[in-house]
Amino acid sequence: MEDCIFCKIVKGEIPSNIIYSDEKIMAFRDVDPQAPTHILFIPRDHVASSAAVRDNSLWSDLVGCAVKTAHELGLDPKGYRMVINTGSEGGQSVPHLHLHLLAGRNLGWPPG
Amino acid sequence: MEDCIFCKIVKGEIPSNIIYSDEKIMAFRDVDPQAPTHILFIPRDHVASSAAVRDNSLWSDLVGCAVKTAHELGLDPKGYRMVINTGSEGGQSVPHLHLHLLAGRNLGWPPG
Repeated sequence: MEDCIFCKIVKGEIPSNIIYSDEKIMAFRDVDPQAPTHILFIPRDHVASSAAVRDNSLWSDLVGCAVKTAHELGLDPKGYRMVINTGSEGGQSVPHLHLHLLAGRNLGWPPG
Repeated sequence: MEDCIFCKIVKGEIPSNIIYSDEKIMAFRDVDPQAPTHILFIPRDHVASSAAVRDNSLWSDLVGCAVKTAHELGLDPKGYRMVINTGSEGGQSVPHLHLHLLAGRNLGWPPG
């Protein structure tokens, strides 16, 4: 998608603080962090939102990558929160599927 | 797990408002809803948290089920939020992996 900011990050056209990258998934720090650790995980291929996912194996790749990264960053003992926003009421700000990983403070309830 | 409240729901020992059930996943309404729609999705088999998941295909089943349910409930147009809490700082209140699906109001930012 030519105008998609996350596709531009995937292509290296916009700089980002990359945490992880493989043939399917990319992870980088949120530019407007809401917690001491705030990382976004996205599929490299453009998918507009969770509602547009056609192959559920993407969830294994995406969530599995976030959980593995959290473990490697030493977040397991204190904990973390994963959030996926879909559509306007969900608070989705960029129309390219992304998973938020937040940690480093007590995350309150309700979750927004 | 004998003392796990979600395992008791799976076994029918505690009543719940069940939305969906198959051989792997069960979904029921949160007893303390934080939005007009607030459903929990859990694996039937006891898994303490996301950090304890050993087979990433569980994410396809769990998240795929939540996305499909959201679609069937007509939540796609306005949107929804999925949240998975891990550990104390993540706000995990029951030590059996669960995904929160929230919808029906504008979900704010930060997500807790």
